[in-house]
Amino acid sequence: MEQYFFQTARSIIAGSGSLERLVEHLQRLGTLKSVLLVSQPFLQSSGTLDQVTSLLKSGGIAAHWNTDVQPEPTIAQLEALYSAIAEVPCDAIIGIGGGSVLDVVKLLSVMKTNSLSVRDMLGTDLIPNPGIPTVLIPTTSGTGSEVTPNAIVTLPEEELKIGVVSRHLLPALVILDPLLTLGLPRDITASTGMDAYTHALESFISNKANRFSDMFALESIRSISASILQAYHHGDDTKAREDMLIGSMYGGMALTCAGTAAVHALAYPIGGKFHVPHGVANSMLLPHVMEFNFDVIVERLALVAGAMGLQSGAGKQRDAEQVIERIRLWTQEMSIPQDLALFGAARGDIPGLSLAASQVTRLMGNNPKAMTLEDIGAVYGKLFH
Amino acid sequence: MEQYFFQTARSIIAGSGSLERLVEHLQRLGTLKSVLLVSQPFLQSSGTLDQVTSLLKSGGIAAHWNTDVQPEPTIAQLEALYSAIAEVPCDAIIGIGGGSVLDVVKLLSVMKTNSLSVRDMLGTDLIPNPGIPTVLIPTTSGTGSEVTPNAIVTLPEEELKIGVVSRHLLPALVILDPLLTLGLPRDITASTGMDAYTHALESFISNKANRFSDMFALESIRSISASILQAYHHGDDTKAREDMLIGSMYGGMALTCAGTAAVHALAYPIGGKFHVPHGVANSMLLPHVMEFNFDVIVERLALVAGAMGLQSGAGKQRDAEQVIERIRLWTQEMSIPQDLALFGAARGDIPGLSLAASQVTRLMGNNPKAMTLEDIGAVYGKLFH
Repeated sequence: MEQYFFQTARSIIAGSGSLERLVEHLQRLGTLKSVLLVSQPFLQSSGTLDQVTSLLKSGGIAAHWNTDVQPEPTIAQLEALYSAIAEVPCDAIIGIGGGSVLDVVKLLSVMKTNSLSVRDMLGTDLIPNPGIPTVLIPTTSGTGSEVTPNAIVTLPEEELKIGVVSRHLLPALVILDPLLTLGLPRDITASTGMDAYTHALESFISNKANRFSDMFALESIRSISASILQAYHHGDDTKAREDMLIGSMYGGMALTCAGTAAVHALAYPIGGKFHVPHGVANSMLLPHVMEFNFDVIVERLALVAGAMGLQSGAGKQRDAEQVIERIRLWTQEMSIPQDLALFGAARGDIPGLSLAASQVTRLMGNNPKAMTLEDIGAVYGKLFH
Repeated sequence: MEQYFFQTARSIIAGSGSLERLVEHLQRLGTLKSVLLVSQPFLQSSGTLDQVTSLLKSGGIAAHWNTDVQPEPTIAQLEALYSAIAEVPCDAIIGIGGGSVLDVVKLLSVMKTNSLSVRDMLGTDLIPNPGIPTVLIPTTSGTGSEVTPNAIVTLPEEELKIGVVSRHLLPALVILDPLLTLGLPRDITASTGMDAYTHALESFISNKANRFSDMFALESIRSISASILQAYHHGDDTKAREDMLIGSMYGGMALTCAGTAAVHALAYPIGGKFHVPHGVANSMLLPHVMEFNFDVIVERLALVAGAMGLQSGAGKQRDAEQVIERIRLWTQEMSIPQDLALFGAARGDIPGLSLAASQVTRLMGNNPKAMTLEDIGAVYGKLFH
């Protein structure tokens, strides 16, 4: 009989202005004297660093900070960051930023309490001790990292991105405040939004899909579909930004239950080797992988069409096709690059990329239709226009 | 702007036979040498106690047990139980049973680590320290207690039932195994199922309803509506039992986000004074309170009708009416008592009950339409046939 599993952040607060209640919720975690804020330089320029340190100060909590996180961080960068903060006294770590920041905070938390190198943590359930409590505050609507037990690190020498998966990476508190995402640039709104949608859609068609993941996936798809173009064209629309942030979180919950599949397996090699941003890589691959899977996922895509308001009245096959057409329409309207050559890749790279993708067995095993090396190569081939 | 909040159990495993994986999931909580099983006498007669102790033994974990939990326990019973187990060495407490067992386990866990009496815990957020980890395994599909921060205790001298609400009552692990519910007697299937449905419906019409609670509430309503009569008539239908168990859990998640309302406020006094089982009290009151609220919840009830497959095609008003009609049909078909006189109450008790209900302000404040003492009395009056 089918068994299924769900785990998530301990507490989630959401809604416009919810960051203002940071201290009230921090105090529920226990007595905190000192916290470490981790982010990227934008946190200072946007004024959010001042806002948060002032909130903490008013709550009698000392704040230290480090805004040196690099996008899509390597192991060496993580270790350098850890050295920089290792001596900072802190009872909790607060991460404010996109997926890279949140993943870094999750890892710093367990590096503080485990005598393992990051390299030894790569894989599933290899971290013995819980970390110090983390608070994750996303400023993009993409990875859903705030509610997943995963963190992705880049191994530049192997040109690979690999996941650390451990329940100890789940945070104590998540704050989803759409006000923090109003200033996101259009291209980031587009690529992170497509990343979130990909999490939901891949979870929904995953071999491990179940009634937990299905609920979160459809709610994510519903929320993102309703607002992705509005958030792109009118970034100051708080309601659309909230839809994207909640949709992204539900996407993270869905993938925690069911896992992603071939789109992600093929995205990691082009991220690792050609530095294609993760959301861009996913949105490039998504329609092609769905077309590859099509004959075995018609029923599921027809349900997705329902959540997207795309019922054609002409049957499930046509409904399912409309989902893929809508994905193409989005990437076009949001000008997301679709040509891998733009990132310096050439057709000659396909065999190496295909081999690397085929080795992401944790995700390939979730794909509803097995992919041979040739199948993978054919999909990569479609990324050259 | 609206803000909203979600918290739940740390991990949830579900599906037929999932109890068999108890030890694997327990080991993820850390090193456990000894656990305490808490339940009611049925655990021995059903063979589940033997099954669980043998699973634990095979995992090298010593098991102690106490099966003395009383239904709808009083403070005195809780304290007696605590005395009986205070010296038992345990790294975690496992509760297997209905809502009373789960609530007792949640309280024993924090009694172990706080020097407060139960009476001092009555109310919201009054427990300073986390308890020892708990594992909650429901054997009824009703309270959703396995995923709520609430525990209900009875104060017999005041003829009252009062809630303890604290994030520290949330468990480390929940196991939802429908095989444990196959043997539930019909009357318990009926009353606990209606309790679960009431949680979802009240959360959906609560003043505090939000996009988190709405998703869980509608999914709960969908799942329960599809299977409540099947589970009642064919208790050995694992699929129907699983629908009820998952529906009950989602009901618990919904009420954690949004709170219940007047049905529960009116149910507690008749539970405290006349020992009407909680699910029976809820199902007696549900149609009358929904009729009282009707004019302000038509839109919401129409959405509920959608989740129940009850679209009439004759507009929202008619859809909404059909929800209440369906509730009446269920209570009739499942022979749930609807007359308060059967429990020894008389019309003369109405003023006292009404006063008590009006004092459950935490829940009354969630009701979408304010209730005067007279309004409450009128609803109680409808329970005398």
